[in-house]
Formats: sequence, C-alpha cells, structure tokens
Amino acid sequence: MKIVLLSGGSGKRLWPLSNDARSKQFLRVLETGSGERISMLQRVWDQLAAEGLGQDSCIATSKGQVDMIQSQIGSEAEIVIEPEKRDTFPAIALAASYLYSMKDMPLDEVMIVMPVDPFVEQPFFNRLRKLERVVQTSGADLALLGVLPTYPSEKYGYIVPESIEEDNTSEYIQVHSFREKPREEEAADMIRQGALWNCGVFAFRLGFIIDMLIERKLPIHYEEAVRQYGRFLKTSFDYEVVEKTEQIVVMPYEGEWKDLGTWNTLTEEIASPLIGKGTLSPDSQNTHVINELDIPVTAIGVSNLIIAASPDGILVSDKEASPRIKELVNSDDLRPMVEERRWGQYRVLDFLKYEDGQEVLTKRIRIQAGKNLSYQYHHKRKEVWTVIAGSGEMILDGQYRRITTGDVIVIPAQSKHSLKAATDMEIIEVQTGTELVEEDIVRLAMRWEEILQFCFI
Amino acid sequence: MKIVLLSGGSGKRLWPLSNDARSKQFLRVLETGSGERISMLQRVWDQLAAEGLGQDSCIATSKGQVDMIQSQIGSEAEIVIEPEKRDTFPAIALAASYLYSMKDMPLDEVMIVMPVDPFVEQPFFNRLRKLERVVQTSGADLALLGVLPTYPSEKYGYIVPESIEEDNTSEYIQVHSFREKPREEEAADMIRQGALWNCGVFAFRLGFIIDMLIERKLPIHYEEAVRQYGRFLKTSFDYEVVEKTEQIVVMPYEGEWKDLGTWNTLTEEIASPLIGKGTLSPDSQNTHVINELDIPVTAIGVSNLIIAASPDGILVSDKEASPRIKELVNSDDLRPMVEERRWGQYRVLDFLKYEDGQEVLTKRIRIQAGKNLSYQYHHKRKEVWTVIAGSGEMILDGQYRRITTGDVIVIPAQSKHSLKAATDMEIIEVQTGTELVEEDIVRLAMRWEEILQFCFI
Repeated sequence: MKIVLLSGGSGKRLWPLSNDARSKQFLRVLETGSGERISMLQRVWDQLAAEGLGQDSCIATSKGQVDMIQSQIGSEAEIVIEPEKRDTFPAIALAASYLYSMKDMPLDEVMIVMPVDPFVEQPFFNRLRKLERVVQTSGADLALLGVLPTYPSEKYGYIVPESIEEDNTSEYIQVHSFREKPREEEAADMIRQGALWNCGVFAFRLGFIIDMLIERKLPIHYEEAVRQYGRFLKTSFDYEVVEKTEQIVVMPYEGEWKDLGTWNTLTEEIASPLIGKGTLSPDSQNTHVINELDIPVTAIGVSNLIIAASPDGILVSDKEASPRIKELVNSDDLRPMVEERRWGQYRVLDFLKYEDGQEVLTKRIRIQAGKNLSYQYHHKRKEVWTVIAGSGEMILDGQYRRITTGDVIVIPAQSKHSLKAATDMEIIEVQTGTELVEEDIVRLAMRWEEILQFCFI
Repeated sequence: MKIVLLSGGSGKRLWPLSNDARSKQFLRVLETGSGERISMLQRVWDQLAAEGLGQDSCIATSKGQVDMIQSQIGSEAEIVIEPEKRDTFPAIALAASYLYSMKDMPLDEVMIVMPVDPFVEQPFFNRLRKLERVVQTSGADLALLGVLPTYPSEKYGYIVPESIEEDNTSEYIQVHSFREKPREEEAADMIRQGALWNCGVFAFRLGFIIDMLIERKLPIHYEEAVRQYGRFLKTSFDYEVVEKTEQIVVMPYEGEWKDLGTWNTLTEEIASPLIGKGTLSPDSQNTHVINELDIPVTAIGVSNLIIAASPDGILVSDKEASPRIKELVNSDDLRPMVEERRWGQYRVLDFLKYEDGQEVLTKRIRIQAGKNLSYQYHHKRKEVWTVIAGSGEMILDGQYRRITTGDVIVIPAQSKHSLKAATDMEIIEVQTGTELVEEDIVRLAMRWEEILQFCFI
C-alpha cells in the first residue's frame, strides 16, 4: 500500500497567515501535548508515523512547496513534484506514474489518495489500513472513506449509499451517488438515509489508474508524464474519475474529522487565545490573536474576533464573517513577506518602489549552519549584504573568501555568488534594481564542492 | 500679550500611534477642509495664525519634542526648551523668565498659558484677546477661560463661580473654588450653580509670576533658570499657583471644546473611517482604522472598534474600553519606531538582540534636500549605509566625498561622520553594536561649513 498526500491550495481563506507560498497546511498553529506548535502537515505526518505508515507515504505537490515541506518534515520525505499546478486528476495520475515506473509498485497494490491536512484523530489512519483490505476484497474499482456527519452541513460533499439492508454487517456499503453542498433540509434528509461526508480519501489498485491512462493515451512513465504534464486535463479526480466509475464502495468513519479551512473552524482547535507577541485583556471573549509580527498586538474588551497579523497583512474579523476574506483580499499581487527555504528562511523588512521604476527590497536572511545558497546571479539587481551574525564562506565571481559578523559584501548585477554557513548566519540584504522578483535568479546547477574547484582560494 | 502653549505629555492613551517621542498633539489624524491630514498642534497653530496671534505665540516644551515641532510647524516657531521634564509650574516659570529676560516683555503685559492641543472652534482664540482685557481691567491676579459644560463629565476639573447676581452683564465672574473630577450627581449640581470646565487656560500679568519667583528666591533670568531648573519643584501650576491665589476670575466660553485624549473622543473627530493602507468591510459599524504601517489592515464585520497600527504596536479595542490602554500597555521600554527629525525622518525596520549582547538595528532614513545630519560619532556601534535614493555629500573622518544611489558606506565606531543631502535622500542603515540607543551619539557642535574647513577635499 502507498498513501499519496495531496498538498495544494493557496489557502486565501486563512489570509494573512497563508499565501501562495505558504498554504494553510503549513501554518504552525496547532499544539501538541507538550505545547509545541505544529502545522496540519506536521500533525498528519506524525499521525501516519504513529500508525507505522511513514515509509508508505509520499507527498504530491508543486515545486513552490518543496522547500516548505522539507523544512517542516525533513528532506527524507518522498515528494512527487508537479511541474506546474493543474488539478487533482493530473496530480494523482503523475503520482501513479511515479509509483509505477520509478518505484516498481505492482499494479495489484493499493494506492490511497488523501488531502495533506485533514484534522482527525489517530483512528482515522487505522481506517486507511482497513480501506486497503476493502479494495482487495470488495471487487469495487474505488473505495472511499465516508465521515459520519454530525450536522447537516451545507459546505461539504455527501456520499449517498445504496439502501442498506437491516442485517448488513459488512465494513463497507455500495455507493449510489454523490451530492455537493446541498441545502440544509436536503442534507438532513440524506443523513437520515445514511449519507456520509466525502473527506477526499480514495483507494484503488494502482492498475485501475494506470489502465485509465493507457486508455486515454496518456504517459504512464514518470519522466514522460512530467514532460507531457501540459497534456493532462486541468480537472479534478472527483469529476474525471469518481463520477464516471460504477463500482464504488464507501467505508464509514465515525471519529472526528474537520476541514480547518477557515478562521472560525481553525480557531476552534487552537487552545491558546494568544499566539505571538501581545496582550489580550482578560474580559475579551471568544477571541483569538495569532501574531507573527515582531510588533505587539493589544486587544481590549473585544468579542468573537480573530486577529491575525503577518508581514502580508493584519486581519481583524468577526469569526463568523471571516470566510468573506476571499472576497475582500486580493492577495495575488502581494509579495510573500516570509518564506521558508531549504537552507533557512527570509523575511521582508521593507519594500519601496520609486517613480523612476527603481525598487528597493530589504530582507533579513537566516541560513542554517552547514547549509548553502545555490550558486546564482541576477540580471537586474545589485545586492548589499551586511553579515549581522555567524560566519561562513562565500564565493563571489570565482573569488573565495571567509566572511563573518560585521562584514559588508557588495554583489553587483551579473556577479555569480554563493554562500555556505559554517555557523547559523544572519544577513541584512538590501536589493536595488528595476525588477526585484524571485524569478530573477539564475541558478547554476553546481554543488558547493564543484563551485570551489573553479575558485581562486 | 504673549501666548505660551504647553507641549508635554507622553500620550500613552493614544498608543500605539503616540509614544514618548511622539505625543498625541503630533498625530496627523485631523482633516482640514481640503482633506489634508494635520495634527492637533498644526490645527491650533493654524487657528492662532488665523486670529493674527501667530507672532504672539511660543511653545514651551522639552528637548525631545523640538525636532517634531519644527518638522510640523516650521523652524521659525519660537520654542522655549525645558532642560528636563518637570511639571507645569516649572515650565511656565521658565517661559516667564524667558519672556522677561530674553524678550524684554514688560511686567504689565499679559501672558496667557494654554495647552498645545485643545480641539476647539476658531472663536476660542478670539476669546484669548478678550481674556487679555479681563486681566487688565478686572484687577484679578488670574483670569481663566471656563468652558460651558454640555454634560456632567466625571473626567474634567470644574471652576465654581461665586453666586452670580441676576443682572450681571460682566464678561467675567469671580471664582469661588475648584473641583477636580467630581461624581456625576455632584457635577450636575455644580453645573446648575454655573460651574464651568477648566480647560487649562490661565492669563496673568507677567509681573505676577516674576514677583512670585523673586519671593521664592527662584531665578528670573532665563539662562540662570535653565541652569537651576532642577531647583524648581516638580509640581503643577494648578496646585502651586492657582489654588493659592485669591483674586481669580473666569470668563465663560460657550463654543465647542474637547480634550481628544483617548481613542473614543479622538475618533469622533476623524471623518474617514480608514486612514492608511487597508480595507474595511461595508457592514462594519462605528469602526475606525488608522494604519501607519505598510502592511494592509483588513477588517470584516466588526463593530465599535478602534484599530490602530504603527511600528510600535497594533491596537484592537472596543472604543469605550480604549482608555484602559494605559493599564495594559507598558510603552516605557519600547523603542520608538518612527521619528520625525529636523532633517527628515527615520523608521525602524528591524531590531534584533542576540544572546551574546550584540544588537542589530535596521532603519530606513529619509533626509530632505538641503538638510544635513549633525557631525557625530558613536562609541558602541558600527553603521553600514546603503544609499537607495538621491545624492549628497558626506564627510567621514575628515574625508569628503560625494555619494549617490547605490553607494555603500561603512562607518566604524568612533568615526566622525556627517551627511548633507543635495536631493531628497533615502538610506538603509544597519547598526551593529552592544548598545544601540539614541543616546550613543556624540554630536560635535559644528555647522556644515565649519566641518568642511577641516576636510581633505
């Protein structure tokens, strides 16, 4: 069995803490028993490990999330990288081609696909093992996990079963149909008839999807699939596969399941009313403050609020009204202000744009001991680094030098440079130029040791 | 007649926009007819000018506020600088000694003292002229302006008049006594008996206070008073003078008068619900957003809130509850994040303190064309300047050089340096050292032209 966690989404509804680079699954707002703050991804990853499924799991995601995932769960995690964002059908097909052609997974083995961030209790993962058996024994093409509804939600999708015979003792039921976001009365009706919430967990034999790809003349070898990724329809697995499959069964899951996709559902699971720097007056009621800024937040005499602050923005919203963020915030054109990277992280301190087109971006960069930046240069910007902590080695246009706290390095446009931290380093970087975008990085595919060979030391 | 505006206060109750360096009178939140945003100081200063009293007015304040005052109302404004913050009695005594010994003001002339930031309509200033006449004709030692109360406030001080005869047609009334912050019923009683609010406007002949100083063996010559300022009791003019004076009259003022000292009173006078970057959802009610950050604020579905954001902090408060800021915020140990200076302004972008005691402070500094920084050096910090806009001249350890956008200048500790902007300049400054405080500036008292004479050009 192989579990594929789908990690996508831009998570606008959790603005300003989530953005295009940091989707909701990466927010470190959940607490472990020991008070450590972890993300939804980290929670699920730990739960998989606790069930002994760690080695059987991999993550399907886009390029932009790889650094973040490795920073949160380690670089050992197996990741299938989509060349571009399409939808769940292409993502799952790509993962299947990877398991088939790169991991030699037999066509009879079971592949389970699920979201990377459900908020569930541990027994959920034990159900995944049972779901494998259901695929093997039921003869169905698809086996789903269906959550026992606790109220007639208008927000979820429902799995409607065939009518159940009284003496049914089977672990699974035949699926009759699907229904997305019904009105409350209809949802209540369906629940009385045994309908379950669709939590996006699909299990099938690997051959089921590989056959489907062959039938559609789509590549089944990973490298080919990556190259031809643009040929895969931008469509969901639900629409392209689930709705067109006849033999589907569902296994009920009675435990807790939540989609922590909005501030009001998420804050229900956050124990501390105040995360980050600030003060919440004792008479404030049902209010959560999550502050990622160095600037303190003080809330006085307020009720039912979510106050969330990050370098991207400051949200003050009535909890019930918070899902409306989507309409009010256009985060597309916002520069992500904090990013985690393979080698550490950076935070934007300041951004200026002058009338003559000149831009100035000031960042604080943290590089972990032993890590190095890629060997790179920029067409349109100059950089000034002031090393404010730690020491390391640097290469600038083929010249090697050791650098340490207090050093100032000027990196003209076109100059090739790299840096390797000996101890944890911090740098204040001032970029000046005409187009200060992440994309203006030409990365030279060389490892640190290779670069050194070309250097004057 | 000379009007002395007392500019003091730390204005904690308007945190986070006001701080020790920027008291409430300096907040640019009031709007003129043309939509320009001005501060309380600027409003009062404009009103004095409109009444033709500009030349007759000066400001008594402490050293720390001089740059801000000059930046807001120009460097021509006459300022009496207290060597240290004491209280209103020493401040008024110092101003009197200044008028007496430096401006040769006759002892018979009238001096009017008032706060720098009352929110009043124009007729208020016409009353000041009348108050001068009252001092000259009534024979009283002190003449006050008393505001006709509009409700029995528990927060103000009351001036209780002698019982008024029915046929009284005089412009002023004898004062019987004073009462600070009475309970509501008592206030209502007093208002029925003709009591007025004390708005802190005191008028007297200069000789009245000079005589008092002589009697107490306190200096009456300005330079002496500055030197011996520590000898003046830290006490208020109300306590030290007003309460001990027998012949006091009060002139009623019927117009609008407000003390915009808290967020709930201040926001009543702010027309725009949103100042600065952000979005306020249309269904939000009675809510004001004042955002001085570059980070946008989004408020959704909220009511009766003041949301104020500055580099010092982010306040989210129920308007009624906002006066409690004073209890909840300890701003004493906070570094002011934005400051206006004689030569421009700076904003703190980042501050770090490492465990080994090393500190890093990153600022963006704006210097106006034609202005120069003082010739200075630092004992405990190194500075790195990256010029990001404009050009100018610089002197570093006796070396003169022209500098322009893109230049990087390293200023070691102990190095004397100054800069004069030819065009508006912006600089990113990274300070590193062990004690990054404003106080670690040794300013050499030399004008730009003088420094140049000692330079290698």
